[in-house]
Amino acid sequence: MTNRSEIKALLFDVFGTVVDWRSGVARDLRPFLTRQAIRVDSFEFADAWRRQYAPAMNEIRSGRRPFVRLDVLHRENLLRVLTDYGVNVSSISADELDELNRAWHHLDPWPDSVEGLLRLKRRFVIASLSNGNISLMLDMAKRAALPWDAILGAEVVRAYKPSPQVYVETVEILGLAPSEVCMVAAHNGDLAAARLCGLKTAFVVRPTEHGPAQKSDLHAEQTWDFAAADLNDLATQLGCPT
Amino acid sequence: MTNRSEIKALLFDVFGTVVDWRSGVARDLRPFLTRQAIRVDSFEFADAWRRQYAPAMNEIRSGRRPFVRLDVLHRENLLRVLTDYGVNVSSISADELDELNRAWHHLDPWPDSVEGLLRLKRRFVIASLSNGNISLMLDMAKRAALPWDAILGAEVVRAYKPSPQVYVETVEILGLAPSEVCMVAAHNGDLAAARLCGLKTAFVVRPTEHGPAQKSDLHAEQTWDFAAADLNDLATQLGCPT
Repeated sequence: MTNRSEIKALLFDVFGTVVDWRSGVARDLRPFLTRQAIRVDSFEFADAWRRQYAPAMNEIRSGRRPFVRLDVLHRENLLRVLTDYGVNVSSISADELDELNRAWHHLDPWPDSVEGLLRLKRRFVIASLSNGNISLMLDMAKRAALPWDAILGAEVVRAYKPSPQVYVETVEILGLAPSEVCMVAAHNGDLAAARLCGLKTAFVVRPTEHGPAQKSDLHAEQTWDFAAADLNDLATQLGCPT
Repeated sequence: MTNRSEIKALLFDVFGTVVDWRSGVARDLRPFLTRQAIRVDSFEFADAWRRQYAPAMNEIRSGRRPFVRLDVLHRENLLRVLTDYGVNVSSISADELDELNRAWHHLDPWPDSVEGLLRLKRRFVIASLSNGNISLMLDMAKRAALPWDAILGAEVVRAYKPSPQVYVETVEILGLAPSEVCMVAAHNGDLAAARLCGLKTAFVVRPTEHGPAQKSDLHAEQTWDFAAADLNDLATQLGCPT
Protein backbone atom coordinates (compact mmCIF):
# COMPACT_ATOMS: atom_id res chain seq x y z
CA MET A 1 0.00 0.00 0.00
CA THR A 2 1.18 3.49 -0.81
CA ASN A 3 2.74 5.32 2.09
CA ARG A 4 0.76 8.52 2.08
CA SER A 5 2.74 9.99 4.98
CA GLU A 6 5.74 10.38 2.70
CA ILE A 7 3.90 12.77 0.35
CA LYS A 8 4.72 16.44 0.87
CA ALA A 9 3.41 18.12 -2.27
CA LEU A 10 0.52 17.54 -4.66
CA LEU A 11 0.75 18.71 -8.26
CA PHE A 12 -2.52 19.17 -10.11
CA ASP A 13 -3.43 18.94 -13.70
CA VAL A 14 -6.01 21.70 -14.15
CA PHE A 15 -7.97 21.56 -17.46
CA GLY A 16 -10.48 18.78 -16.88
CA THR A 17 -9.13 17.77 -13.47
CA VAL A 18 -9.88 20.94 -11.48
CA VAL A 19 -11.97 23.00 -13.91
CA ASP A 20 -14.63 22.23 -16.53
CA TRP A 21 -13.05 23.72 -19.66
CA ARG A 22 -15.74 22.50 -22.09
CA SER A 23 -18.70 24.27 -20.47
CA GLY A 24 -16.68 27.40 -19.79
CA VAL A 25 -15.34 27.75 -23.30
CA ALA A 26 -18.76 27.00 -24.82
CA ARG A 27 -20.32 29.67 -22.56
CA ASP A 28 -17.93 32.35 -23.86
CA LEU A 29 -18.28 31.10 -27.43
CA ARG A 30 -22.06 31.42 -27.54
CA PRO A 31 -22.36 35.26 -27.74
CA PHE A 32 -19.34 35.40 -30.05
CA LEU A 33 -20.80 32.87 -32.48
CA THR A 34 -24.15 34.67 -32.45
CA ARG A 35 -22.53 38.08 -33.01
CA GLN A 36 -20.46 36.75 -35.89
CA ALA A 37 -23.41 34.77 -37.31
CA ILE A 38 -21.37 31.56 -37.24
CA ARG A 39 -23.82 28.66 -37.28
CA VAL A 40 -21.93 26.09 -35.23
CA ASP A 41 -22.93 24.58 -31.89
CA SER A 42 -20.83 26.11 -29.12
CA PHE A 43 -19.87 22.71 -27.64
CA GLU A 44 -18.89 21.40 -31.06
CA PHE A 45 -16.71 24.49 -31.55
CA ALA A 46 -15.17 24.07 -28.08
CA ASP A 47 -14.33 20.45 -28.88
CA ALA A 48 -12.83 21.44 -32.23
CA TRP A 49 -10.73 24.12 -30.52
CA ARG A 50 -9.52 21.63 -27.92
CA ARG A 51 -8.64 19.06 -30.60
CA GLN A 52 -5.96 21.48 -31.84
CA TYR A 53 -4.35 21.52 -28.38
CA ALA A 54 -2.23 18.36 -28.53
CA PRO A 55 -0.94 18.82 -32.12
CA ALA A 56 0.06 22.42 -31.36
CA MET A 57 2.02 21.37 -28.26
CA ASN A 58 3.57 18.48 -30.18
CA GLU A 59 5.44 20.99 -32.34
CA ILE A 60 7.15 22.21 -29.17
CA ARG A 61 7.52 18.82 -27.47
CA SER A 62 9.30 17.55 -30.57
CA GLY A 63 11.71 20.49 -30.60
CA ARG A 64 10.50 21.67 -34.01
CA ARG A 65 9.40 24.94 -32.44
CA PRO A 66 10.79 26.87 -29.46
CA PHE A 67 8.58 27.14 -26.37
CA VAL A 68 5.73 29.63 -26.51
CA ARG A 69 3.04 29.95 -23.84
CA LEU A 70 -0.36 28.32 -24.21
CA ASP A 71 -2.18 31.64 -24.77
CA VAL A 72 -0.24 31.91 -28.04
CA LEU A 73 -1.14 28.37 -29.12
CA HIS A 74 -4.81 28.86 -28.15
CA ARG A 75 -4.93 32.04 -30.26
CA GLU A 76 -3.38 30.34 -33.30
CA ASN A 77 -5.69 27.35 -32.86
CA LEU A 78 -8.72 29.63 -32.68
CA LEU A 79 -7.85 31.14 -36.07
CA ARG A 80 -7.39 27.65 -37.49
CA VAL A 81 -10.77 26.42 -36.24
CA LEU A 82 -12.57 29.55 -37.44
CA THR A 83 -11.00 29.12 -40.86
CA ASP A 84 -11.97 25.44 -40.90
CA TYR A 85 -15.58 26.54 -40.32
CA GLY A 86 -15.30 28.86 -43.33
CA VAL A 87 -15.03 32.10 -41.37
CA ASN A 88 -13.01 34.96 -42.86
CA VAL A 89 -10.91 35.72 -39.76
CA SER A 90 -9.65 39.03 -41.11
CA SER A 91 -13.18 40.38 -40.67
CA ILE A 92 -12.98 39.93 -36.89
CA SER A 93 -11.13 42.48 -34.76
CA ALA A 94 -8.00 41.41 -32.91
CA ASP A 95 -9.54 42.67 -29.67
CA GLU A 96 -12.54 40.42 -30.09
CA LEU A 97 -10.33 37.40 -30.78
CA ASP A 98 -8.13 38.23 -27.79
CA GLU A 99 -11.16 38.47 -25.56
CA LEU A 100 -12.52 35.15 -26.77
CA ASN A 101 -9.09 33.59 -26.29
CA ARG A 102 -9.32 34.56 -22.62
CA ALA A 103 -12.28 32.15 -22.24
CA TRP A 104 -9.60 29.69 -21.06
CA HIS A 105 -8.75 32.11 -18.21
CA HIS A 106 -12.33 32.12 -16.90
CA LEU A 107 -13.24 28.48 -16.39
CA ASP A 108 -15.39 27.25 -13.53
CA PRO A 109 -14.12 24.64 -11.09
CA TRP A 110 -15.94 21.34 -10.67
CA PRO A 111 -18.28 21.54 -7.65
CA ASP A 112 -15.86 19.69 -5.32
CA SER A 113 -12.64 21.43 -6.42
CA VAL A 114 -12.38 24.42 -4.10
CA GLU A 115 -13.38 22.53 -0.95
CA GLY A 116 -11.13 19.60 -1.84
CA LEU A 117 -8.14 21.87 -2.49
CA LEU A 118 -8.69 23.80 0.75
CA ARG A 119 -8.70 20.54 2.72
CA LEU A 120 -5.59 19.25 0.93
CA LYS A 121 -3.80 22.58 1.37
CA ARG A 122 -3.86 22.25 5.15
CA ARG A 123 -1.67 19.16 5.00
CA PHE A 124 0.26 19.44 1.73
CA VAL A 125 1.83 21.95 -0.60
CA ILE A 126 -0.66 22.24 -3.47
CA ALA A 127 0.51 23.58 -6.82
CA SER A 128 -0.90 23.61 -10.31
CA LEU A 129 1.13 21.68 -12.88
CA SER A 130 -0.75 22.62 -16.00
CA ASN A 131 0.20 23.25 -19.60
CA GLY A 132 -1.66 26.55 -19.16
CA ASN A 133 0.55 29.61 -18.76
CA ILE A 134 0.99 31.49 -15.51
CA SER A 135 -1.34 34.43 -16.22
CA LEU A 136 -4.05 32.04 -17.40
CA MET A 137 -3.76 30.05 -14.14
CA LEU A 138 -3.63 33.26 -12.11
CA ASP A 139 -6.76 34.78 -13.69
CA MET A 140 -8.57 31.47 -13.24
CA ALA A 141 -7.48 31.10 -9.61
CA LYS A 142 -8.45 34.67 -8.65
CA ARG A 143 -11.91 34.31 -10.22
CA ALA A 144 -12.64 30.82 -8.90
CA ALA A 145 -10.84 31.06 -5.54
CA LEU A 146 -8.49 28.18 -6.29
CA PRO A 147 -6.12 28.37 -3.31
CA TRP A 148 -2.81 27.34 -4.94
CA ASP A 149 0.35 27.63 -2.87
CA ALA A 150 2.24 28.04 -6.14
CA ILE A 151 1.58 28.09 -9.87
CA LEU A 152 4.08 25.79 -11.53
CA GLY A 153 3.83 24.01 -14.87
CA ALA A 154 4.78 24.40 -18.50
CA GLU A 155 5.75 28.07 -18.51
CA VAL A 156 8.06 27.73 -15.49
CA VAL A 157 10.03 24.87 -17.04
CA ARG A 158 9.46 25.94 -20.67
CA ALA A 159 8.20 22.52 -21.77
CA TYR A 160 4.82 20.84 -22.13
CA LYS A 161 3.48 17.76 -20.37
CA PRO A 162 3.88 14.88 -20.81
CA SER A 163 7.55 15.62 -21.57
CA PRO A 164 9.49 14.04 -18.67
CA GLN A 165 11.45 17.22 -17.98
CA VAL A 166 8.24 18.92 -16.79
CA TYR A 167 7.86 16.47 -13.90
CA VAL A 168 11.57 16.08 -13.20
CA GLU A 169 12.38 19.79 -13.15
CA THR A 170 9.28 20.63 -11.11
CA VAL A 171 10.26 18.10 -8.44
CA GLU A 172 13.72 19.64 -8.38
CA ILE A 173 12.26 23.15 -8.07
CA LEU A 174 10.29 21.90 -5.05
CA GLY A 175 13.50 20.56 -3.48
CA LEU A 176 11.83 17.19 -2.89
CA ALA A 177 12.39 13.58 -3.89
CA PRO A 178 10.06 12.34 -6.68
CA SER A 179 8.42 9.91 -4.23
CA GLU A 180 7.46 12.86 -2.00
CA VAL A 181 5.41 14.40 -4.80
CA CYS A 182 2.05 13.15 -6.08
CA MET A 183 0.62 14.04 -9.49
CA VAL A 184 -3.17 14.43 -9.46
CA ALA A 185 -4.95 14.17 -12.81
CA ALA A 186 -8.08 12.99 -14.56
CA HIS A 187 -5.90 11.71 -17.42
CA ASN A 188 -4.17 8.36 -17.41
CA GLY A 189 -1.50 9.63 -19.81
CA ASP A 190 -0.42 12.43 -17.50
CA LEU A 191 -0.15 10.00 -14.59
CA ALA A 192 1.77 7.45 -16.66
CA ALA A 193 4.35 10.09 -17.57
CA ALA A 194 4.62 11.25 -13.94
CA ARG A 195 5.04 7.66 -12.73
CA LEU A 196 7.92 7.09 -15.15
CA CYS A 197 9.65 10.03 -13.43
CA GLY A 198 9.15 8.45 -9.99
CA LEU A 199 6.24 10.58 -8.76
CA LYS A 200 3.27 9.15 -6.90
CA THR A 201 -0.03 9.26 -8.78
CA ALA A 202 -3.67 10.00 -7.99
CA PHE A 203 -6.43 9.50 -10.56
CA VAL A 204 -9.59 11.58 -10.24
CA VAL A 205 -12.40 10.51 -12.54
CA ARG A 206 -14.09 13.32 -14.47
CA PRO A 207 -16.61 11.44 -16.61
CA THR A 208 -18.13 14.50 -18.30
CA GLU A 209 -14.98 16.49 -19.10
CA HIS A 210 -15.59 15.80 -22.79
CA GLY A 211 -19.37 15.93 -22.51
CA PRO A 212 -22.06 13.28 -22.04
CA ALA A 213 -20.60 10.85 -24.60
CA GLN A 214 -17.08 10.74 -23.14
CA LYS A 215 -15.22 7.50 -23.86
CA SER A 216 -11.67 8.20 -22.59
CA ASP A 217 -10.30 8.30 -19.05
CA LEU A 218 -13.46 6.83 -17.52
CA HIS A 219 -11.35 4.37 -15.51
CA ALA A 220 -7.89 4.06 -14.01
CA GLU A 221 -5.79 2.27 -16.63
CA GLN A 222 -3.03 1.36 -14.19
CA THR A 223 -3.02 0.71 -10.46
CA TRP A 224 -2.36 4.30 -9.49
CA ASP A 225 -1.38 5.06 -5.90
CA PHE A 226 -4.80 6.62 -5.36
CA ALA A 227 -8.03 6.63 -7.36
CA ALA A 228 -10.72 9.05 -6.26
CA ALA A 229 -14.25 10.05 -7.21
CA ASP A 230 -13.40 13.74 -6.80
CA LEU A 231 -11.02 16.04 -4.91
CA ASN A 232 -13.01 15.78 -1.70
CA ASP A 233 -12.71 12.01 -1.86
CA LEU A 234 -8.96 12.37 -2.48
CA ALA A 235 -8.68 14.63 0.58
CA THR A 236 -10.44 11.99 2.67
CA GLN A 237 -8.17 9.23 1.33
CA LEU A 238 -5.13 11.37 2.14
CA GLY A 239 -6.30 11.86 5.71
CA CYS A 240 -7.34 15.52 5.48
CA PRO A 241 -10.20 16.40 7.85
CA THR A 242 -13.30 18.12 6.47
CA MET B 1 -0.56 61.99 -8.95
CA THR B 2 -0.21 58.29 -9.64
CA ASN B 3 -3.32 56.66 -11.01
CA ARG B 4 -3.76 53.78 -8.62
CA SER B 5 -6.79 52.45 -10.46
CA GLU B 6 -4.57 51.37 -13.33
CA ILE B 7 -2.57 48.96 -11.13
CA LYS B 8 -3.57 45.31 -11.47
CA ALA B 9 -0.70 43.42 -9.87
CA LEU B 10 1.72 44.08 -7.03
CA LEU B 11 5.14 42.41 -7.03
CA PHE B 12 6.90 42.16 -3.68
CA ASP B 13 10.48 42.03 -2.73
CA VAL B 14 10.54 39.60 0.21
CA PHE B 15 13.83 39.56 2.21
CA GLY B 16 13.62 42.72 4.32
CA THR B 17 10.38 43.97 2.77
CA VAL B 18 7.98 41.22 3.87
CA VAL B 19 10.10 39.17 6.28
CA ASP B 20 12.77 39.93 8.87
CA TRP B 21 15.68 37.84 7.59
CA ARG B 22 18.23 39.08 10.14
CA SER B 23 16.38 37.97 13.27
CA GLY B 24 15.30 34.71 11.67
CA VAL B 25 18.74 33.71 10.47
CA ALA B 26 20.32 34.72 13.80
CA ARG B 27 17.72 32.60 15.64
CA ASP B 28 18.65 29.48 13.67
CA LEU B 29 22.36 30.27 13.91
CA ARG B 30 22.42 30.45 17.72
CA PRO B 31 22.08 26.72 18.53
CA PHE B 32 24.37 25.85 15.61
CA LEU B 33 27.12 28.22 16.77
CA THR B 34 26.81 26.90 20.32
CA ARG B 35 26.93 23.26 19.18
CA GLN B 36 29.98 23.91 17.04
CA ALA B 37 31.63 26.07 19.72
CA ILE B 38 31.99 28.95 17.25
CA ARG B 39 32.41 32.12 19.29
CA VAL B 40 30.75 34.67 17.03
CA ASP B 41 27.64 36.73 17.77
CA SER B 42 24.70 35.30 15.81
CA PHE B 43 23.69 38.70 14.39
CA GLU B 44 27.27 39.41 13.32
CA PHE B 45 27.35 36.02 11.57
CA ALA B 46 23.97 36.67 9.91
CA ASP B 47 25.25 40.02 8.62
CA ALA B 48 28.45 38.41 7.32
CA TRP B 49 26.41 35.71 5.58
CA ARG B 50 24.17 38.34 4.00
CA ARG B 51 27.17 40.39 2.84
CA GLN B 52 28.10 37.50 0.53
CA TYR B 53 24.65 37.69 -1.13
CA ALA B 54 25.24 40.48 -3.65
CA PRO B 55 28.74 39.39 -4.79
CA ALA B 56 27.52 35.81 -5.31
CA MET B 57 24.61 36.99 -7.47
CA ASN B 58 26.91 39.36 -9.35
CA GLU B 59 28.71 36.37 -10.83
CA ILE B 60 25.41 35.36 -12.41
CA ARG B 61 24.16 38.85 -13.27
CA SER B 62 27.41 39.46 -15.15
CA GLY B 63 27.07 36.25 -17.14
CA ARG B 64 30.30 34.79 -15.70
CA ARG B 65 28.27 31.93 -14.19
CA PRO B 66 25.07 30.24 -15.40
CA PHE B 67 21.98 30.68 -13.25
CA VAL B 68 21.77 28.61 -10.08
CA ARG B 69 19.06 29.01 -7.45
CA LEU B 70 19.64 31.02 -4.29
CA ASP B 71 19.74 27.93 -2.02
CA VAL B 72 22.95 26.97 -3.84
CA LEU B 73 24.48 30.43 -3.39
CA HIS B 74 23.45 30.57 0.29
CA ARG B 75 25.11 27.18 0.88
CA GLU B 76 28.35 28.25 -0.81
CA ASN B 77 28.31 31.54 1.07
CA LEU B 78 27.82 29.74 4.37
CA LEU B 79 30.97 27.70 3.79
CA ARG B 80 32.86 30.86 2.89
CA VAL B 81 31.76 32.70 6.05
CA LEU B 82 32.51 29.72 8.28
CA THR B 83 35.97 29.47 6.74
CA ASP B 84 36.51 33.22 7.22
CA TYR B 85 35.77 32.70 10.92
CA GLY B 86 38.44 29.99 11.04
CA VAL B 87 36.07 27.03 11.16
CA ASN B 88 37.16 23.74 9.55
CA VAL B 89 34.00 23.13 7.51
CA SER B 90 34.89 19.53 6.73
CA SER B 91 34.28 18.74 10.40
CA ILE B 92 30.57 19.65 10.05
CA SER B 93 28.14 17.18 8.51
CA ALA B 94 26.46 18.04 5.23
CA ASP B 95 23.06 17.44 6.86
CA GLU B 96 23.77 20.01 9.54
CA LEU B 97 24.88 22.58 6.96
CA ASP B 98 21.82 21.86 4.81
CA GLU B 99 19.56 22.32 7.81
CA LEU B 100 21.20 25.62 8.74
CA ASN B 101 20.94 26.75 5.12
CA ARG B 102 17.18 26.30 5.40
CA ALA B 103 17.11 29.11 8.00
CA TRP B 104 16.30 31.33 5.00
CA HIS B 105 13.15 29.22 4.40
CA HIS B 106 11.83 29.86 7.93
CA LEU B 107 11.81 33.63 8.33
CA ASP B 108 9.13 35.50 10.23
CA PRO B 109 7.06 38.22 8.56
CA TRP B 110 7.08 41.77 9.93
CA PRO B 111 4.04 42.27 12.20
CA ASP B 112 2.01 44.08 9.49
CA SER B 113 2.89 41.81 6.56
CA VAL B 114 0.18 39.12 6.64
CA GLU B 115 -2.68 41.52 7.31
CA GLY B 116 -1.41 43.99 4.72
CA LEU B 117 -1.05 41.27 2.07
CA LEU B 118 -4.51 39.88 2.79
CA ARG B 119 -6.02 43.34 2.32
CA LEU B 120 -4.07 43.96 -0.88
CA LYS B 121 -4.94 40.49 -2.23
CA ARG B 122 -8.65 41.33 -2.29
CA ARG B 123 -8.06 44.05 -4.87
CA PHE B 124 -4.85 43.08 -6.68
CA VAL B 125 -2.87 40.10 -7.84
CA ILE B 126 -0.09 39.78 -5.26
CA ALA B 127 3.06 37.86 -6.16
CA SER B 128 6.50 37.56 -4.68
CA LEU B 129 9.32 38.85 -6.90
CA SER B 130 12.28 37.75 -4.83
CA ASN B 131 15.75 36.53 -5.60
CA GLY B 132 14.89 33.60 -3.34
CA ASN B 133 14.08 30.35 -5.12
CA ILE B 134 10.61 28.88 -5.40
CA SER B 135 10.90 26.20 -2.69
CA LEU B 136 12.37 28.76 -0.29
CA MET B 137 9.42 31.11 -0.91
CA LEU B 138 6.97 28.20 -0.66
CA ASP B 139 8.31 26.93 2.69
CA MET B 140 8.31 30.48 4.01
CA ALA B 141 4.77 31.17 2.81
CA LYS B 142 3.34 27.93 4.21
CA ARG B 143 4.93 28.54 7.64
CA ALA B 144 4.08 32.24 7.87
CA ALA B 145 0.73 32.19 6.03
CA LEU B 146 1.86 34.63 3.35
CA PRO B 147 -1.09 34.52 0.94
CA TRP B 148 0.67 34.85 -2.42
CA ASP B 149 -1.40 34.42 -5.56
CA ALA B 150 1.80 33.33 -7.32
CA ILE B 151 5.47 32.87 -6.56
CA LEU B 152 7.43 34.59 -9.30
CA GLY B 153 10.98 35.92 -9.22
CA ALA B 154 14.54 34.93 -10.01
CA GLU B 155 14.05 31.19 -10.50
CA VAL B 156 11.12 31.62 -12.90
CA VAL B 157 13.05 33.96 -15.20
CA ARG B 158 16.51 32.50 -14.40
CA ALA B 159 18.05 35.88 -13.58
CA TYR B 160 18.63 37.95 -10.46
CA LYS B 161 17.26 41.38 -9.59
CA PRO B 162 18.09 44.12 -10.34
CA SER B 163 18.77 42.79 -13.87
CA PRO B 164 16.13 44.45 -16.08
CA GLN B 165 15.02 41.15 -17.60
CA VAL B 166 13.60 40.07 -14.22
CA TYR B 167 11.07 42.92 -14.25
CA VAL B 168 10.44 42.90 -17.99
CA GLU B 169 9.89 39.14 -18.29
CA THR B 170 7.74 39.00 -15.16
CA VAL B 171 5.45 41.71 -16.52
CA GLU B 172 5.21 39.74 -19.75
CA ILE B 173 4.40 36.54 -17.84
CA LEU B 174 1.58 38.43 -16.12
CA GLY B 175 0.24 39.51 -19.51
CA LEU B 176 0.09 43.14 -18.33
CA ALA B 177 1.57 46.48 -19.34
CA PRO B 178 4.48 47.63 -17.13
CA SER B 179 2.37 50.55 -15.89
CA GLU B 180 -0.23 48.08 -14.60
CA VAL B 181 2.32 46.47 -12.29
CA CYS B 182 3.74 47.99 -9.10
CA MET B 183 6.99 46.84 -7.48
CA VAL B 184 6.89 46.98 -3.68
CA ALA B 185 10.23 47.03 -1.88
CA ALA B 186 12.12 48.39 1.11
CA HIS B 187 15.12 48.97 -1.14
CA ASN B 188 15.56 52.03 -3.32
CA GLY B 189 17.80 50.11 -5.73
CA ASP B 190 15.13 47.51 -6.47
CA LEU B 191 12.58 50.25 -7.15
CA ALA B 192 14.97 52.24 -9.34
CA ALA B 193 15.54 49.17 -11.53
CA ALA B 194 11.80 48.47 -11.72
CA ARG B 195 11.08 52.10 -12.65
CA LEU B 196 13.56 51.96 -15.51
CA CYS B 197 11.47 49.07 -16.88
CA GLY B 198 8.28 51.14 -16.67
CA LEU B 199 6.76 49.61 -13.53
CA LYS B 200 5.10 51.64 -10.82
CA THR B 201 6.93 51.73 -7.50
CA ALA B 202 6.03 51.59 -3.81
CA PHE B 203 8.61 52.12 -1.08
CA VAL B 204 8.02 50.55 2.32
CA VAL B 205 10.41 51.68 5.01
CA ARG B 206 11.93 48.88 7.10
CA PRO B 207 14.28 50.79 9.41
CA THR B 208 15.56 47.77 11.36
CA GLU B 209 16.09 45.28 8.52
CA HIS B 210 19.83 45.56 9.11
CA GLY B 211 19.52 45.99 12.88
CA PRO B 212 19.40 49.02 15.18
CA ALA B 213 22.27 50.87 13.45
CA GLN B 214 20.85 50.69 9.92
CA LYS B 215 22.00 53.52 7.65
CA SER B 216 20.68 52.52 4.21
CA ASP B 217 17.16 52.71 2.79
CA LEU B 218 15.82 54.78 5.68
CA HIS B 219 14.18 57.17 3.22
CA ALA B 220 12.76 57.21 -0.29
CA GLU B 221 15.61 58.35 -2.54
CA GLN B 222 13.32 59.20 -5.45
CA THR B 223 9.71 60.30 -5.64
CA TRP B 224 8.28 56.82 -5.83
CA ASP B 225 4.63 56.42 -6.78
CA PHE B 226 3.88 55.42 -3.20
CA ALA B 227 5.83 55.58 0.06
CA ALA B 228 4.40 53.69 3.01
CA ALA B 229 5.19 53.07 6.66
CA ASP B 230 4.30 49.40 6.30
CA LEU B 231 2.13 47.06 4.20
CA ASN B 232 -1.03 48.01 6.07
CA ASP B 233 -0.36 51.64 5.28
CA LEU B 234 0.22 50.71 1.63
CA ALA B 235 -3.11 48.86 1.58
CA THR B 236 -4.84 51.95 2.91
CA GLN B 237 -3.14 54.19 0.33
CA LEU B 238 -4.21 51.80 -2.41
CA GLY B 239 -7.83 51.94 -1.27
CA CYS B 240 -8.09 48.45 0.26
CA PRO B 241 -10.56 48.28 3.15
CA THR B 242 -9.43 46.79 6.48
